[in-house]
Amino acid sequence: MNFASDNVVGASAPVLEAILRHNGGAMPAYGADPLTLGLTPRFRALFEHADLSVFPVTTGTAANALALSVMVPPFGLCLCHEEAHVMEDECGAPEFYTHGAKLHGLSGPGGKIAPDTLDRFLSGLPRHVKQMPARALTLSQLTESGQVYAVEEIAALARIAHAHGLTVHMDGARFANALVALGCPPAEMTWRAGIDILSFGASKNGALAAEAIVVFRPDLAETLEFRRKRAGHILSKGRFLAAQLDAYLDGDHWRANAAHANRMAARLAAGLAEIPGVRLAWPVQGNEVFPILPAGLDAALRRAGVVYHAWTSRSLAEGDRVGEGERMIRLIAAFSTTEAEVEDFLVLARRAA
Amino acid sequence: MNFASDNVVGASAPVLEAILRHNGGAMPAYGADPLTLGLTPRFRALFEHADLSVFPVTTGTAANALALSVMVPPFGLCLCHEEAHVMEDECGAPEFYTHGAKLHGLSGPGGKIAPDTLDRFLSGLPRHVKQMPARALTLSQLTESGQVYAVEEIAALARIAHAHGLTVHMDGARFANALVALGCPPAEMTWRAGIDILSFGASKNGALAAEAIVVFRPDLAETLEFRRKRAGHILSKGRFLAAQLDAYLDGDHWRANAAHANRMAARLAAGLAEIPGVRLAWPVQGNEVFPILPAGLDAALRRAGVVYHAWTSRSLAEGDRVGEGERMIRLIAAFSTTEAEVEDFLVLARRAA
Amino acid sequence: MNFASDNVVGASAPVLEAILRHNGGAMPAYGADPLTLGLTPRFRALFEHADLSVFPVTTGTAANALALSVMVPPFGLCLCHEEAHVMEDECGAPEFYTHGAKLHGLSGPGGKIAPDTLDRFLSGLPRHVKQMPARALTLSQLTESGQVYAVEEIAALARIAHAHGLTVHMDGARFANALVALGCPPAEMTWRAGIDILSFGASKNGALAAEAIVVFRPDLAETLEFRRKRAGHILSKGRFLAAQLDAYLDGDHWRANAAHANRMAARLAAGLAEIPGVRLAWPVQGNEVFPILPAGLDAALRRAGVVYHAWTSRSLAEGDRVGEGERMIRLIAAFSTTEAEVEDFLVLARRAA
Amino acid sequence: MNFASDNVVGASAPVLEAILRHNGGAMPAYGADPLTLGLTPRFRALFEHADLSVFPVTTGTAANALALSVMVPPFGLCLCHEEAHVMEDECGAPEFYTHGAKLHGLSGPGGKIAPDTLDRFLSGLPRHVKQMPARALTLSQLTESGQVYAVEEIAALARIAHAHGLTVHMDGARFANALVALGCPPAEMTWRAGIDILSFGASKNGALAAEAIVVFRPDLAETLEFRRKRAGHILSKGRFLAAQLDAYLDGDHWRANAAHANRMAARLAAGLAEIPGVRLAWPVQGNEVFPILPAGLDAALRRAGVVYHAWTSRSLAEGDRVGEGERMIRLIAAFSTTEAEVEDFLVLARRAA
Repeated sequence: MNFASDNVVGASAPVLEAILRHNGGAMPAYGADPLTLGLTPRFRALFEHADLSVFPVTTGTAANALALSVMVPPFGLCLCHEEAHVMEDECGAPEFYTHGAKLHGLSGPGGKIAPDTLDRFLSGLPRHVKQMPARALTLSQLTESGQVYAVEEIAALARIAHAHGLTVHMDGARFANALVALGCPPAEMTWRAGIDILSFGASKNGALAAEAIVVFRPDLAETLEFRRKRAGHILSKGRFLAAQLDAYLDGDHWRANAAHANRMAARLAAGLAEIPGVRLAWPVQGNEVFPILPAGLDAALRRAGVVYHAWTSRSLAEGDRVGEGERMIRLIAAFSTTEAEVEDFLVLARRAA
Repeated sequence: MNFASDNVVGASAPVLEAILRHNGGAMPAYGADPLTLGLTPRFRALFEHADLSVFPVTTGTAANALALSVMVPPFGLCLCHEEAHVMEDECGAPEFYTHGAKLHGLSGPGGKIAPDTLDRFLSGLPRHVKQMPARALTLSQLTESGQVYAVEEIAALARIAHAHGLTVHMDGARFANALVALGCPPAEMTWRAGIDILSFGASKNGALAAEAIVVFRPDLAETLEFRRKRAGHILSKGRFLAAQLDAYLDGDHWRANAAHANRMAARLAAGLAEIPGVRLAWPVQGNEVFPILPAGLDAALRRAGVVYHAWTSRSLAEGDRVGEGERMIRLIAAFSTTEAEVEDFLVLARRAA
Repeated sequence: MNFASDNVVGASAPVLEAILRHNGGAMPAYGADPLTLGLTPRFRALFEHADLSVFPVTTGTAANALALSVMVPPFGLCLCHEEAHVMEDECGAPEFYTHGAKLHGLSGPGGKIAPDTLDRFLSGLPRHVKQMPARALTLSQLTESGQVYAVEEIAALARIAHAHGLTVHMDGARFANALVALGCPPAEMTWRAGIDILSFGASKNGALAAEAIVVFRPDLAETLEFRRKRAGHILSKGRFLAAQLDAYLDGDHWRANAAHANRMAARLAAGLAEIPGVRLAWPVQGNEVFPILPAGLDAALRRAGVVYHAWTSRSLAEGDRVGEGERMIRLIAAFSTTEAEVEDFLVLARRAA
Repeated sequence: MNFASDNVVGASAPVLEAILRHNGGAMPAYGADPLTLGLTPRFRALFEHADLSVFPVTTGTAANALALSVMVPPFGLCLCHEEAHVMEDECGAPEFYTHGAKLHGLSGPGGKIAPDTLDRFLSGLPRHVKQMPARALTLSQLTESGQVYAVEEIAALARIAHAHGLTVHMDGARFANALVALGCPPAEMTWRAGIDILSFGASKNGALAAEAIVVFRPDLAETLEFRRKRAGHILSKGRFLAAQLDAYLDGDHWRANAAHANRMAARLAAGLAEIPGVRLAWPVQGNEVFPILPAGLDAALRRAGVVYHAWTSRSLAEGDRVGEGERMIRLIAAFSTTEAEVEDFLVLARRAA
């Protein structure tokens, strides 16, 4: 049993089939192929936005960093949650792609930035040439604590950001899981709420290696293709990226995958909640579960061969601190996690408790 | 018929099969999977080098630029042929990854730098803080004109470069085609001849999207993993990159593919040579053919639906200029080019001539 | 009366005289002049270090950023106090010169990093390619709160940093004020305590525009001259930078200037301490005074035309918070501050209180 | 006698006097002082342009590189003459400040780019994402060969550049010498002819260390102050930069200096022309003289202690090649070069010939 991440599993069957299906025959290289060209109308329809641009890449780090590279000048600040992936897990990719912009982390429970926190920070910023001016905000949907921003929260944050001259990015590495959780159309959770650029993740939810940078403001898209090229992120056989995204979207495969993963996470959470001494750091809203459990139970699960990450976070609410003799862990359900795996895990946990 | 490039075709069957074969089950993410870990011993055996490091990436541009990022400081010069891919076709990727190093192009027929040219340039460089010091040399094997550097030529160039304190890179986007042409072991054409880092191409010769940066000098490898990460070039599902490279190397698949492509190119060249008014800009040494032909023949071929690139070059030998009423074109044979396609093309060409 | 900073005043008479004295005659440009060449032996003698290198520049920001550019790779972390000048007041200069390294701020009272804090941070850093590795530590001497690191504190911090593979920089914008406060030789407060590179400030203490990057580790000096050139920080008429530094050091002019400024600050502090309702945020150790005073007194001083900065800081010790109805301000004494100015200010303050 | 450059001499008396005159009293730091604030109306009047912005810096390299940093994106090409100072003598400063843009050199006699050359290059540029798009043109006035672009030439070049979407920069390190040579108002030679940003040089013509970036297009000025700050090019005691520029412009001091230097150069040239075996590589138009002379004469002059640079250039017109037994040298007259020096030199040269 491996709940370490949603990227420890392979790709979904439809994604692999699409790769095979489009392998034959000659197609223009570097994204001039018909599959890649077809992504634009497809994403425009999906997001109900006539002018968006879409740039496929192979990794979430590339998607985020390229997005930020057109949003923040080298001398600008980019605001994010203090535990955001861009801040903690990308080895400085945003700094590399922006040529030295600075990420500034804001704190907040559940990995979420509260509108008030943002407003207070922006209003208090000194405006002297000695200080880097704030130019962008990036939100993670799901957050690093598995939480979902409500549409109104996104809208409130974007409103404040825009009022201060910032652009707004969404790191949607787990976009589908959040979308399914909210049950709203993609447009609602993004540009209608004020998102200017979205990193649309697919790798964690069934693709082999495919993400899409979706740019809702045409002026921000102007230089992205050059930047993508010089970053080495235009595949010569572009068809293979496009084929993955096509299969991912076909027949709501992506939503089905995410719904399944969310369901498995909810079941894990429900089962764990019944075990004495176990509580959740945050409510399960997507496909991530953060139990706080007795150290003995943690050890027993590991001894039994269950794979998952130990977790620490500054985003716990007051009063939720991990006590002596307790451990926080992270369990992630993937599109391919089976009910049997979940049941086996819960049986094991109950027995060990 | 499409001879535009060796990247207009898909991936080879064994490569796709390997992707399918390794899809099941959980594996650690970000290159900690057993397949990726297995690449090191495999490349060490292949190159007969106990200390090399290997870093898989998805594009040749990423491989080249990451390699140069550890060879040239931001204030250094990187020498290359004036028509090299890094100079003309990567939208400034080397400049991006090196943080502003300057590529300086040297001229020479057939896309090759002559040892004398290199020596004269390096000896004549002013050594004042106002001038960027030369720090690296990059050679393309095959060159942009489809030519192969002989092992002795590589060794002579590397000797001069090293004597002046430069490191030496080989852009092996078509490494297999050159290797097969020379019929020597990989070690001979690389580190034994003085190459410090190799971009080992696979995408053009059967892979879906896979290249490997092969570093022969351990000190140059120290920071590459961090640089690869912050460039967004570590796939979360690393197994899929490794699986491609494994299949590529299994059973000499890569050499068979390249040998076939080279043979198809030779046949194209031989057939064209028999047509009056057609000559070759350079001899065919790998899988690229550069015919100079009457404008009428060019037009007829295009009308018949043959796809290929028009070509211009400053690397023609004296006396080989493209005349009025002539056109230079580039034809590339891929691993998947069939004898039938070649024959059809030649029939067409003979008829049109 | 202007106590806003030690850079609101002009240059000292000896510095200006040196500029005039060396104006005549032809000298080689770009630092090949005899004055600039003479800086090396002079700084070597001053710092009792046979191998140091010295690179004059015109601003402290340039000195700091150039120093860090050879200490931190683009993917590395540079640790500093959370309120350090490099972090808050240089508009991202370190990020620019290092090509995207990240500054990470540590907290501590008085603008000082405690050895324990450093040790705990470094020991707790995850060592995965996703996280930027820590590579340098920069200390401000004086700190932003006007405090002085004792020699043993510097040594303890440097020992920890070196043990973790970091290099250590000292931002000595107010080096002379700190040195005079400690009463030790320059070598003690720098390389003997483990400092690898020093930004030796002179502009705030009498120079017109002159700082010196002093590099104690020869390997770190290797590329600095190229970096200085391409940053546009080599003056064509280099004599004028060297002349300032010469005059600054001649006859202990620099120490006399700093001692005077420190004395003026001490007198300001002593006088203020006698006024009811006024206390100091931190003890005066150099030439900076941080009174916390009644809002009414602050208003009265400003109305009387005294110029200084309002101040806020996260470096106050517990229990020292600025209360409702209080204000924290910063007063800085310069080399040219007169006793009369200090007395006038104190008279004014006493009267207003 | 030293004719090596116009930066081997000191500063002019009025410039030094201004520094002394403005030394007393407190002034706000970092360019908020009244002298610096006064530069804007002054340059607006001088250039007859109501919206220009002016940014003083200490070096020409900083002026050029900062100017280009707002004109060329990191993925863009900047066109210049192949022997331009930005290309050959700034150790990659433009690449540093633009974050990796590429300088592309065009050839042309006398260091000048011909409009036709520019037009042909721009029209022939491939427009694919693999190729860096051209975004700026920089012209040197005087050129590296001491030549002056006529106003119509500048206008023709700027027209072509603008038509292709490029911005146009003038490197005016010897702006005054060119302006005096043309006898036109500053506006004619700059923005009215299509220049978007000017590096206005003063250091070579009497200042101690002062240049000004003059931005004629308000949109290009928006981010320059942040970029200047993070490059460490805002002096804390900004008054000293402004004082130099003030004195430089007062009473036409700058034009007088340049006129004198040009006259001395003309006299050198006239005297040399009378010596058998001596000819000029290019006509003297400013303050630079490029004699081609017998090797024996060169040796004799050097033996006699005259200091100047040997010169080579690819900008010689056909038929002007330096023969066996000949040497090309560069002589530069400064604002402070005396008639006596010129006479002594000519006497020496006549005697040695």
